[in-house]
Amino acid sequence: MYSFNNDYSEGAHPRILQALVESNLQQEIGYGQDSFTNKAAEVLKAKMNSDEVDVHLLVGGTQTNLIAISAFLRPHEAAIAASTGHIFVHETGAIEATGHKVITVDAKHGKLTPSLVQSVLDEHTDEHMVKPKLVYISNSTEIGTIYSKSELEQLSQFCQINNLIFYMDGARLGSALCAKDNDLVLSDFPKLLDAFYIGGTKNGALMGEALVIKNDSLKADFRYHIKQKGAMLAKGRLLGIQFYELFKDDLFFELAEYANKMAERLNRALAEKGYRFLTPSSTNQVFPIFSNEKITMLQKNYQFNIWEKIDKDHSAIRLVTSWATKEAEVEAFIKEI
Amino acid sequence: MYSFNNDYSEGAHPRILQALVESNLQQEIGYGQDSFTNKAAEVLKAKMNSDEVDVHLLVGGTQTNLIAISAFLRPHEAAIAASTGHIFVHETGAIEATGHKVITVDAKHGKLTPSLVQSVLDEHTDEHMVKPKLVYISNSTEIGTIYSKSELEQLSQFCQINNLIFYMDGARLGSALCAKDNDLVLSDFPKLLDAFYIGGTKNGALMGEALVIKNDSLKADFRYHIKQKGAMLAKGRLLGIQFYELFKDDLFFELAEYANKMAERLNRALAEKGYRFLTPSSTNQVFPIFSNEKITMLQKNYQFNIWEKIDKDHSAIRLVTSWATKEAEVEAFIKEI
Amino acid sequence: MYSFNNDYSEGAHPRILQALVESNLQQEIGYGQDSFTNKAAEVLKAKMNSDEVDVHLLVGGTQTNLIAISAFLRPHEAAIAASTGHIFVHETGAIEATGHKVITVDAKHGKLTPSLVQSVLDEHTDEHMVKPKLVYISNSTEIGTIYSKSELEQLSQFCQINNLIFYMDGARLGSALCAKDNDLVLSDFPKLLDAFYIGGTKNGALMGEALVIKNDSLKADFRYHIKQKGAMLAKGRLLGIQFYELFKDDLFFELAEYANKMAERLNRALAEKGYRFLTPSSTNQVFPIFSNEKITMLQKNYQFNIWEKIDKDHSAIRLVTSWATKEAEVEAFIKEI
Amino acid sequence: MYSFNNDYSEGAHPRILQALVESNLQQEIGYGQDSFTNKAAEVLKAKMNSDEVDVHLLVGGTQTNLIAISAFLRPHEAAIAASTGHIFVHETGAIEATGHKVITVDAKHGKLTPSLVQSVLDEHTDEHMVKPKLVYISNSTEIGTIYSKSELEQLSQFCQINNLIFYMDGARLGSALCAKDNDLVLSDFPKLLDAFYIGGTKNGALMGEALVIKNDSLKADFRYHIKQKGAMLAKGRLLGIQFYELFKDDLFFELAEYANKMAERLNRALAEKGYRFLTPSSTNQVFPIFSNEKITMLQKNYQFNIWEKIDKDHSAIRLVTSWATKEAEVEAFIKEI
Repeated sequence: MYSFNNDYSEGAHPRILQALVESNLQQEIGYGQDSFTNKAAEVLKAKMNSDEVDVHLLVGGTQTNLIAISAFLRPHEAAIAASTGHIFVHETGAIEATGHKVITVDAKHGKLTPSLVQSVLDEHTDEHMVKPKLVYISNSTEIGTIYSKSELEQLSQFCQINNLIFYMDGARLGSALCAKDNDLVLSDFPKLLDAFYIGGTKNGALMGEALVIKNDSLKADFRYHIKQKGAMLAKGRLLGIQFYELFKDDLFFELAEYANKMAERLNRALAEKGYRFLTPSSTNQVFPIFSNEKITMLQKNYQFNIWEKIDKDHSAIRLVTSWATKEAEVEAFIKEI
Repeated sequence: MYSFNNDYSEGAHPRILQALVESNLQQEIGYGQDSFTNKAAEVLKAKMNSDEVDVHLLVGGTQTNLIAISAFLRPHEAAIAASTGHIFVHETGAIEATGHKVITVDAKHGKLTPSLVQSVLDEHTDEHMVKPKLVYISNSTEIGTIYSKSELEQLSQFCQINNLIFYMDGARLGSALCAKDNDLVLSDFPKLLDAFYIGGTKNGALMGEALVIKNDSLKADFRYHIKQKGAMLAKGRLLGIQFYELFKDDLFFELAEYANKMAERLNRALAEKGYRFLTPSSTNQVFPIFSNEKITMLQKNYQFNIWEKIDKDHSAIRLVTSWATKEAEVEAFIKEI
Repeated sequence: MYSFNNDYSEGAHPRILQALVESNLQQEIGYGQDSFTNKAAEVLKAKMNSDEVDVHLLVGGTQTNLIAISAFLRPHEAAIAASTGHIFVHETGAIEATGHKVITVDAKHGKLTPSLVQSVLDEHTDEHMVKPKLVYISNSTEIGTIYSKSELEQLSQFCQINNLIFYMDGARLGSALCAKDNDLVLSDFPKLLDAFYIGGTKNGALMGEALVIKNDSLKADFRYHIKQKGAMLAKGRLLGIQFYELFKDDLFFELAEYANKMAERLNRALAEKGYRFLTPSSTNQVFPIFSNEKITMLQKNYQFNIWEKIDKDHSAIRLVTSWATKEAEVEAFIKEI
Repeated sequence: MYSFNNDYSEGAHPRILQALVESNLQQEIGYGQDSFTNKAAEVLKAKMNSDEVDVHLLVGGTQTNLIAISAFLRPHEAAIAASTGHIFVHETGAIEATGHKVITVDAKHGKLTPSLVQSVLDEHTDEHMVKPKLVYISNSTEIGTIYSKSELEQLSQFCQINNLIFYMDGARLGSALCAKDNDLVLSDFPKLLDAFYIGGTKNGALMGEALVIKNDSLKADFRYHIKQKGAMLAKGRLLGIQFYELFKDDLFFELAEYANKMAERLNRALAEKGYRFLTPSSTNQVFPIFSNEKITMLQKNYQFNIWEKIDKDHSAIRLVTSWATKEAEVEAFIKEI
């Protein structure tokens, strides 16, 4: 049985573990103020070509989203997301639990546009409704698609004009940046966004997300929010060591590229055999549509998510690849279909 | 420069790292439903001699406290703690941020008693005040003291009679259980408490606390609360592997015993030299009182917290030992005073 | 200029004011424990033919909804509402501000059905999503429609089977109960619902809603929640006096009947002239569709809400009648169209 | 039986009721945007000699405190209050329910001073603790004392220097301003405070508090917070009519002066008979100390609160007077002691 369930089925890339082992007995200050965390922040700033950002290393995606969004918003303000948005669907009401509504719009390929956001603004006109204030996007999205530079620029400009906070969930940002049709680089994001995070958990780390805050007005006292939400690691070094290892050279991108290559292999083979897809994806999530019969057959040897019912005889499944995906298993899977 | 600042200045005990390395490429289900987490829960239940408890592995102490307490209480209910209690002093209002007041009483040696809790109940008589509902203790306490079995039994009985939830923060439970004057064993706690946690972070793990819920009425849907507060690790295996390693044999207790031994060495040497202590401690935190002059001298070679001003010429400092404390450094420190 | 904007444009029915004047200098205990509040609760229980309910008098609808729902739900639980539901659209995220998500479904005529609720349950399957727990309906709905007895019975049974709390917002319950096609009576509700409120503000009171809790498990400590949310009136008598006056004989129903009669007059006249309606309504809200030209013309002499754009040339407006609506103004309005 | 329990045992001053009756059938816009609310705001601004303030009319004190404080603070910020402060003791954790800790200090006569506030700042030094941000005082205090102009000025200056929000609970501000040893006038407050409220409920209104916001940075979107917390009255006119009536001439001050006169009568008579007092009070709350025997005797004909046990034979009681207190009852009470 081999799993294409997700990109966090294994531990960490061996170099990450090695870095942990090597630094293990070095004494460090706690709570994210250690030398490794500092080095990780420095190397990330260098990769982003920006000295003006604050970097905070956190443990997971839901945690990062809820801390950032609840720190950024006042009580009556709300986030806007695509109806496929992770904060709306799969975080057990984490944002609402901090007091904030998530307003959704149906968005083609899971991607917000200025006109979709405008439609939300149009409907929220007075104090009997929440005030839309933060635009939440994911890149890559929950359904594997990515934003182009021009799409992000348009949203960025729209947010600036409308005094909205522009925030990106980058749980799978590595895969997005290594997609063959991607035209964005890491240093674009601090120019376009108020805040975003770079996901480590799904790209080779044991755990960890690097939250980057560009907008000065969102920076003050951020460490208080981290602590208050129970997210300040005593041994913050763990995150520092990992992000330093991922970014001191280009391991982060190498791993994402490999994951995409495996996905591309699946994509091509499936397309060649005439299968359709739920969404076009150039990242590490692939959503082919199979007959239920075929799915049952595949489940004998493979684990994967059944994503969406298409009709009574067909469903889309989700295949996820990662830095740890074995090429031989991909080939075996292809053979089986 | 050597640090006695805390018990989380280093990484993890080497056996923990080794376990992570060995299991690294094994595919596992995410979110704490993997085989390692199951094994960790089983071995913990066996050590507690109780099949009736639920075990949830979480990342840190503040996180564990806030998830447990907010899950257990209804909106109008409050926690009672000693005024030295970690949830009151050092968690950035994490409990209040979930909507609940923390009521405090001054408690000798940081330890609650039935009569102290009764005094809180006496003052909270109607719906114009919060309803005290959960008794929060730490063992060992924030100032190094421990509860005896009889003290816990009295509190337990008091809570039962008064329909209060009895909860223990065990961030340093290992050290408490290995103290020379301790008369409690792990299997006592499910009998005496509604819920408690066993701290890994401060006793050899990279991170991790094992929350144990005994009271059936507090168990339902607990995983929802974990997820909602951003505490459900994608790679939950990380916690499972560590707790299994700590408890599959008695590593957890060996590490705590060693930490206590180092503290005892400091305690004895300081007492012999005539120094007084802020509190009596048989655990891994020692609070000697030094002249300010002596403190300045010691700071040249050692890091430690200045805990409390005693008079204009003296302060109590905190020395913390751990599984990783080097015996040679303890001896050197003793020599220096 | 005459306003059909809403049913709270005037003060209170003169009998209410008279009752306030007459009782004014009588000394009473505060915070809803006065003799008038007791009498109001007694007379309401008699009208509902139920001794087993708790009655709490509150100031407004949003306040009542947020206190009830936040008191009833645990942190991870959510409310289900029609997408037209007041708690979703027009309460500035009041429910989310207490930590709870509101899940919506598109519902014909603003009315939930078992199959719509089932579709929500089907989509919420594990702890990565909130747990749907409370079914929120309004009767009459936000768009003037009402539930039949059989519809409520089906929902009630469905909720019981699925362990859901069934809650009704009765801001305009008087109008619903006096609708010509209504087959429910006040005494039906404690049999069918776990909790609901009877609206006073929109039916002749200065302000005030009577929350009725039938389900025993939702009753405990409810006054704490009222106080905590700032809703416990020092002079609780104000609400007691008003509800006693509305229900000691049938003033409440007389006022609603009059409001409906005025709406029916508008309905009939508009239908006779061939106008269409956004929704069929037998209550005190009427939603005729006019050309934009006609609307502009009517706005010269009348105030009303423009409810929804129908096409580029037409919109639905909302006309609301009340106990205070002047028959002559209704006739004049009809003449003008 | 006559009650000195509180200053809200009766309805409203007859002029208030008359104003409600006279305006009753006038149609007005809802939600606090009516002509009466506008007039009330205008007359209050004139009395305060300030055009730069925002005025919001709310229903009750706890409601006002919780909306203002939760709107003003970010999630990690806390309020500082005297340990007798209403928000700490008697609001069922309303502030904590919005996520914010209330830090207290023991304060002589219930009054904060710069040095007391400084002691809180000294203890809150980093992100492991909440950030003290708002200074909450009451005038008159919960135990009947008042602030002098110089005391307020010192606190005001201290808050400005330390970037703290200075907020005053004026539930009994009328009585404070009419105390014989008071040297403050209404127009002082916008100069000294960031925000405060003028209490109507305890000084002649049916209900109502006028929140005044001076600090521009606290004004934005305030109506959203009112609505979100369920405090936006559909018939906002009710509050407008009452505050206009109280302030269009000096009814508000006349009523407070009368209440104080009645209290002064009690004060003097009790002092003459040699009774001691818990606190010195020149406002409408008097705290004489009686033997338990005497208290039992007085309870035959009078209602009042037993405030605090002094020793095993004596307790302090609280006698509260108001605009509605009958002089004859005061004389009768005096005769009885």
